[in-house]
Amino acid sequence: MAGPELRTEPGRVIADLKELRALTADEDGAQRLAWSDIWVAAREWFDRKLEGLDVSVEVDQAGNKWVTLAGADPRPLILAGHIDSVPNGGWLDGSLGLLAGLEVLRAAAAAGPPPVTLQLVDWADEEGARFGYGMLGSSAVSGSLDLERVRGLSDREGNALPTVLAARGVEVEKMLAARGRLADARGYIELHIEQGPVLEDLGLPLAVVNGTVGVERHVVRFGGQAAHAGPTPMDRRREALAAAARLLLAMREEALEAGSKFTAGRLVTRPGVATVVAAEVELTVDQRHADADILADLLARAKARAAEIAAEEDVSCEWTRLWGIEPMAFDQQLIEIATGVVEELAGEAPRMDSGALHDAGEVVRAGVPTVMLFVQSLGGISHTKVEDTREADLILSVEALAKLVERALEQAS
Amino acid sequence: MAGPELRTEPGRVIADLKELRALTADEDGAQRLAWSDIWVAAREWFDRKLEGLDVSVEVDQAGNKWVTLAGADPRPLILAGHIDSVPNGGWLDGSLGLLAGLEVLRAAAAAGPPPVTLQLVDWADEEGARFGYGMLGSSAVSGSLDLERVRGLSDREGNALPTVLAARGVEVEKMLAARGRLADARGYIELHIEQGPVLEDLGLPLAVVNGTVGVERHVVRFGGQAAHAGPTPMDRRREALAAAARLLLAMREEALEAGSKFTAGRLVTRPGVATVVAAEVELTVDQRHADADILADLLARAKARAAEIAAEEDVSCEWTRLWGIEPMAFDQQLIEIATGVVEELAGEAPRMDSGALHDAGEVVRAGVPTVMLFVQSLGGISHTKVEDTREADLILSVEALAKLVERALEQAS
Repeated sequence: MAGPELRTEPGRVIADLKELRALTADEDGAQRLAWSDIWVAAREWFDRKLEGLDVSVEVDQAGNKWVTLAGADPRPLILAGHIDSVPNGGWLDGSLGLLAGLEVLRAAAAAGPPPVTLQLVDWADEEGARFGYGMLGSSAVSGSLDLERVRGLSDREGNALPTVLAARGVEVEKMLAARGRLADARGYIELHIEQGPVLEDLGLPLAVVNGTVGVERHVVRFGGQAAHAGPTPMDRRREALAAAARLLLAMREEALEAGSKFTAGRLVTRPGVATVVAAEVELTVDQRHADADILADLLARAKARAAEIAAEEDVSCEWTRLWGIEPMAFDQQLIEIATGVVEELAGEAPRMDSGALHDAGEVVRAGVPTVMLFVQSLGGISHTKVEDTREADLILSVEALAKLVERALEQAS
Repeated sequence: MAGPELRTEPGRVIADLKELRALTADEDGAQRLAWSDIWVAAREWFDRKLEGLDVSVEVDQAGNKWVTLAGADPRPLILAGHIDSVPNGGWLDGSLGLLAGLEVLRAAAAAGPPPVTLQLVDWADEEGARFGYGMLGSSAVSGSLDLERVRGLSDREGNALPTVLAARGVEVEKMLAARGRLADARGYIELHIEQGPVLEDLGLPLAVVNGTVGVERHVVRFGGQAAHAGPTPMDRRREALAAAARLLLAMREEALEAGSKFTAGRLVTRPGVATVVAAEVELTVDQRHADADILADLLARAKARAAEIAAEEDVSCEWTRLWGIEPMAFDQQLIEIATGVVEELAGEAPRMDSGALHDAGEVVRAGVPTVMLFVQSLGGISHTKVEDTREADLILSVEALAKLVERALEQAS
């Protein structure tokens, strides 16, 4: 049986995005920090957008909002986004997926009851910008949520996560009860801005995402010897900072060769005085690759290189894992369907790994066939108020999402 | 005319040093921070040590304490030290020079009026540990004091330097009135611990110091582009931290080749987040060499190298001078006399440049013939409670100081 034809009006998505921006941004950008008053206002605005649509709305135990357009088959195909933003964020990150999904729901509702139930989820706290725990809502649904860690988190002002969430009706101890949510899902499709410069470099509007990369995030501590800048001969120094500098340059070189990503975002010197050789240096290292074996190999090589450098510099070296996630591969069949759709609409359909993490990774973890579409980001810039995408590309991305849903529904029926 | 024979009892110096330590140190080390109550108590203790000696004592407008043993010729030969310490400091840095000088004064007084007036100065705030301005008292006497800068300084708790000094009877606006103090001095001799490992490596107790090195201290700011660790391709990044790492390694290499000193003690990453390529990095660089031309050349080469690296990494680079001082060469005649004395007492008399700065540098600036003696530091360690020197070496250093004063007095008479 053929599925419904979804006649979207992509201009409405752009109008909705602008309305949301007007409501929730100030001169520094979007301020929809999860759990904040502005985030609550944004969600209420979204609820009003659902008025007149024949959908049911519920919020699960983890704070995720589920909009359901019932179809003949109750096993849902899920669309998604997140209305939360980083502080001083952009107008598209998360919101585009949600409001494009809403437009698809509108079109489906207008076409009569769909053969398969459609759901749209607004994930809670994808950004993790306040408590440092991203994909909070989706990880509760996938079951990967680290409850012990989450219990102990607090924001910069010292507000405990459990207290802040309780004020929004989410009890931390019950969050994992949302786990069953994806049990019978047929598939999951998320449209997102690329947040990188690859599509702009290619001169193309859309890409199909293979999956999210694996991440190894560590802090490396080098311990040398504090020494006075004046009397201490150069060949008698035990320089933690030189060791850290050598390691980060070596890891960058390795990443360039391996086609992986490597970021050393934070380096701290102690005591951090101009006239004293630093006794201790902490360096964060973040390695990313879509292949779990290659990632493990890169980490092992970095540790071996660090040990060599430490021996040469006569300093100590200690690694502490901050966080990590395995690569999450998307569904081959959905990738193929998406590739066909993007080729039709944009001529070419490049594939890429997502270096950034997304709720879609958690959905893969829950065993649901998943795919993502990326639309070009101007300048590859995100998480700032200058984040932008050409309106023509936004329109194309909504059309691609709708067509992908059509094909997936056809497939399912 | 031959000068007096100075019969010192070096054991008294060690006893005095231990008494001072018992009075002013806690379990973390010496706490004689300049202008503090403990510092005042240490100076009062020193005053009591002068009781019974036929000397006059006065404190100048910059807080330096001058002890004068009048001789036939009023133009003084000056001995020196500083009773102030860094927080959690050692028992010898500064105090050894002062209390060894006191013992020489005792011996000279016992030998009858000297042919030449002897003075002993306790410099105020040599360490600069509270307000970040070292050699405060001696720079007032030399006239190099930067009054404008000093006026604006405050400590970590926000106490203004002028207020703190006023409570100790020093008016900042009048400090430079101490400038005439060195006008007719014949010479200046300072004994100090080495604070480095060179003498220990040589297996020798004493060295003669050629002068203090010149210092160029700058902060280098590299400005790149903040970018997300995930989506941003490696070859599209503008990495300020990689540029800083390359510069510091290049400068270290250059220092090893040039025989100079290079220290990068502080590096700050902004925003300093593990998942964000740092947008800005600040690196302090401290270069030291005894030759002004070589030092200037090293700075010029570092700036050129930084510019090359910045161009290659596509980041901006900006230098700001934090502080600097030209090399101060000690007096050739005094160096020769000191060399003779140290050879007699220790067999060998190595010469070295002082990588650390000392009040003696300010005295050179005032045009007074100057020399310093260094005594071995165990492990080359200073500015901590573990700072130490063998008692046999301390005794030898007091004897060397006394003999050097004898010879200088002979020379002068």
